[in-house]
Amino acid sequence: GAPIALISGPCQLESAAHARMICEGLLEACAPTGTKFIFKASYDKANRSSLSTNRGLGMEMGLRILSDIRAEYGVPVLTDVHEPGHCAIAAEAVDVLQIPAFLCRQTDLLLAAGETGLAINIKKGQFLAPWDMKNVAAKVESTGNRRIMLCERGTSFGYNTLVTDFRGLPTMAETGWPVVFDATHSVQQPGGLGGSSGGQRQFAPVLARAACAVGVSALFIETHEDPDTAPSDGPNMIHLRDMQALVGTLCAFDRLAKGL
Amino acid sequence: GAPIALISGPCQLESAAHARMICEGLLEACAPTGTKFIFKASYDKANRSSLSTNRGLGMEMGLRILSDIRAEYGVPVLTDVHEPGHCAIAAEAVDVLQIPAFLCRQTDLLLAAGETGLAINIKKGQFLAPWDMKNVAAKVESTGNRRIMLCERGTSFGYNTLVTDFRGLPTMAETGWPVVFDATHSVQQPGGLGGSSGGQRQFAPVLARAACAVGVSALFIETHEDPDTAPSDGPNMIHLRDMQALVGTLCAFDRLAKGL
Amino acid sequence: GAPIALISGPCQLESAAHARMICEGLLEACAPTGTKFIFKASYDKANRSSLSTNRGLGMEMGLRILSDIRAEYGVPVLTDVHEPGHCAIAAEAVDVLQIPAFLCRQTDLLLAAGETGLAINIKKGQFLAPWDMKNVAAKVESTGNRRIMLCERGTSFGYNTLVTDFRGLPTMAETGWPVVFDATHSVQQPGGLGGSSGGQRQFAPVLARAACAVGVSALFIETHEDPDTAPSDGPNMIHLRDMQALVGTLCAFDRLAKGL
Amino acid sequence: GAPIALISGPCQLESAAHARMICEGLLEACAPTGTKFIFKASYDKANRSSLSTNRGLGMEMGLRILSDIRAEYGVPVLTDVHEPGHCAIAAEAVDVLQIPAFLCRQTDLLLAAGETGLAINIKKGQFLAPWDMKNVAAKVESTGNRRIMLCERGTSFGYNTLVTDFRGLPTMAETGWPVVFDATHSVQQPGGLGGSSGGQRQFAPVLARAACAVGVSALFIETHEDPDTAPSDGPNMIHLRDMQALVGTLCAFDRLAKGL
Repeated sequence: GAPIALISGPCQLESAAHARMICEGLLEACAPTGTKFIFKASYDKANRSSLSTNRGLGMEMGLRILSDIRAEYGVPVLTDVHEPGHCAIAAEAVDVLQIPAFLCRQTDLLLAAGETGLAINIKKGQFLAPWDMKNVAAKVESTGNRRIMLCERGTSFGYNTLVTDFRGLPTMAETGWPVVFDATHSVQQPGGLGGSSGGQRQFAPVLARAACAVGVSALFIETHEDPDTAPSDGPNMIHLRDMQALVGTLCAFDRLAKGL
Repeated sequence: GAPIALISGPCQLESAAHARMICEGLLEACAPTGTKFIFKASYDKANRSSLSTNRGLGMEMGLRILSDIRAEYGVPVLTDVHEPGHCAIAAEAVDVLQIPAFLCRQTDLLLAAGETGLAINIKKGQFLAPWDMKNVAAKVESTGNRRIMLCERGTSFGYNTLVTDFRGLPTMAETGWPVVFDATHSVQQPGGLGGSSGGQRQFAPVLARAACAVGVSALFIETHEDPDTAPSDGPNMIHLRDMQALVGTLCAFDRLAKGL
Repeated sequence: GAPIALISGPCQLESAAHARMICEGLLEACAPTGTKFIFKASYDKANRSSLSTNRGLGMEMGLRILSDIRAEYGVPVLTDVHEPGHCAIAAEAVDVLQIPAFLCRQTDLLLAAGETGLAINIKKGQFLAPWDMKNVAAKVESTGNRRIMLCERGTSFGYNTLVTDFRGLPTMAETGWPVVFDATHSVQQPGGLGGSSGGQRQFAPVLARAACAVGVSALFIETHEDPDTAPSDGPNMIHLRDMQALVGTLCAFDRLAKGL
Repeated sequence: GAPIALISGPCQLESAAHARMICEGLLEACAPTGTKFIFKASYDKANRSSLSTNRGLGMEMGLRILSDIRAEYGVPVLTDVHEPGHCAIAAEAVDVLQIPAFLCRQTDLLLAAGETGLAINIKKGQFLAPWDMKNVAAKVESTGNRRIMLCERGTSFGYNTLVTDFRGLPTMAETGWPVVFDATHSVQQPGGLGGSSGGQRQFAPVLARAACAVGVSALFIETHEDPDTAPSDGPNMIHLRDMQALVGTLCAFDRLAKGL
């Protein structure tokens, strides 16, 4: 297989300047290893734990920033979509559409995303068995789209916590589609802070190393220059200044796993 | 509290004649106990396990049948909605909008449903702790809507199965909103048949009795005159001819629990 | 079926006077409903969360107290055993031997218990599926002992918590052996207090009502005159003064479930 | 840290000749990487799923074989103990005593094992949180024994299956004691074959690689020259002829993780 790619960014778009700063930091982090980088950010956090938390910049401004990032830095850009009607619009601005885990069984969303022809990163629902992702992928395949990625991001394990079942990575790979490991949301503690989700940042690099040893096509890791003040997923984000070292470590495990 | 109500119907709309037959059967089943009955049916199964399964009659024909049922029999009617834009349309035809479990964190859907002013039955996500439903309800409350029900339908427990945690019923009741127990989907085995979900019909009455003993405001039980050929959720449906006896039993437990 | 029996007592023996006081309180609690009562107490808490907690009075003094309770009040007495070599000794003093949940797969313990000829109450391991209890029971059956009870006490559900799967009660009943529901340990939070286990006392009556509605042969409920100072399982014990009302409620649900 | 050690053997002792054959095969498998090897075998499978399955050679013959293996090959030998009274006896024949997962809370067994002064490998219960192993270790520490290993072997996840939570490895390492990963029992499916446990052999190397990438002190992997006919744990055993390649791969991940 090819070396791992990195899908990374600030989770939620904060401003054009912030997105540019994060993108530049990640390009630097990926440079020493020559790691392929896809910039990820959300224009709308459509399923926050509670209403009082920040949802983001909105679709129009968000997509403009993403499209500008793509033009300025020449990097592919990924964002997540929440309604069928948004897919074609988002597809004008980005290179990869992401299906959120909660929505991975919504047929119309999968079809609308598939019909854009863009690459589709489908997160496995926290409630779904790894082997059931073949039915999910088949919905996108039915549109003729053959650019699918399946993404592990943790499975429900009691309340307010997730567990990563690494048997799921080879199981999902049996579909033939590349598998992505989302190290950020796999260490999320959903609803764990009452009105918002907690997280265990310290375990994200641990699980990412394990995923590389098992074998994956890409890592998904959210980052921030000040995770404790990030508007969402701060508790499970990696500090931007730590990304270069982490990418270096993960690439070493990836090369060993793939015999590169 | 008031005696339990029954939310029941064929899961998926099959035809006007079929809906009428089921509705009549349920009215008969509820008559001896004087149980309040809400007819439930879906016009679109928007999140089936796989694409090859039947999605239903579609919105326009489905809503017409539901509205006719309401007019003909004078029963309140419930259906589920999957996109914010569908809420106002469905609200013309039905009395209760239901938020599917997978979608219980989708803010826009909750707001759009709440804004119709209709009663909203929110299913607890299989991935959600009972105490986190207060944040979900708060999204609907923010619209000024004070007609909310919270519905238990099972929690992820390993793969392809659910468990019902009966501690969740009093926990959700602490919000002050009435709690519904969905005995049909609580015994679902998601994805358990490969391309569709399995179920354990034999346990639905068992868990329904337990729920009444714990104390709930309503039971949600899907039914069919021939469950093994029902287009969806057949494996966990109760046979229509068994509904009257079941309602009688459940009312007895309910009266005992509530001292009625 | 026969009306439910009650297995109850102070968890851990504290003194002869304390055991007598609890036994008298429970006899009073059971009198109005004529409920059959089995006194339960442990002489040794052999698997506490941590070493610093109290293990109890020890085998010799403990068995003497239990045997005195039996003689004085004419009630059957139950205690738990932890090693094969202890079974015959304990069998001199008590009427029912209990196999702890953690030990339900230990063949030698099951055989030694079975060979005493006493009734054996086997707790289902927190790690065991209900249908696997038939293999456990078969170990005792192999000794010729036909006095077996299978007891639900919660199943692992994430960390530091248990869930009660009420489908397990009818599943275990398929063995033909009577099923007991342990309402006290089902609401335990193992290790939840760091050096000891926490619990959710408020849910014990809730789950006990549900068990009676589902249908069981006996309830297992630990009690104390001052649960917050009990040497073990205090957080999930029912106050002794509340037992009579609880037994009354549970008997009502039991009669309804059994058509008595 | 030091390079990983390998704890390996045939699960259940079959005969002296068989033990010698397996030991020789494992010495060969470990030679190219110079991996430290501890021979593991059980003289008694004391907690089989059902009574009809084979328990092994018994204590006397089993310990003699283990002691002969130690003398003949100069390798340290590990076996598991199930009763306090067996610890001192087994300690005559072996170098490491292992506490089975189901028994990891049994205080007397932990104390008796600790008092032998031998190294103690404690398997984490399938029902226990990783952070609760510090209380378990403290029981052994209380005997003055400072030769403790903590072993991950999977956590209950629904019924008849386990999941490996790799966050548990660094969590247990916080105790200061070396952490072992048991790749064989982590892929067990307890009770999954009705009267015996199933397993997913194909995932044992996958999880073992992940464990090395996370960082462990030793790997525990059972092996057989014909796994499908092994008297226990066959479905999750690695074929003896595959062990050398596997050890080589795991050592490479271990060196990378430890910077060796």
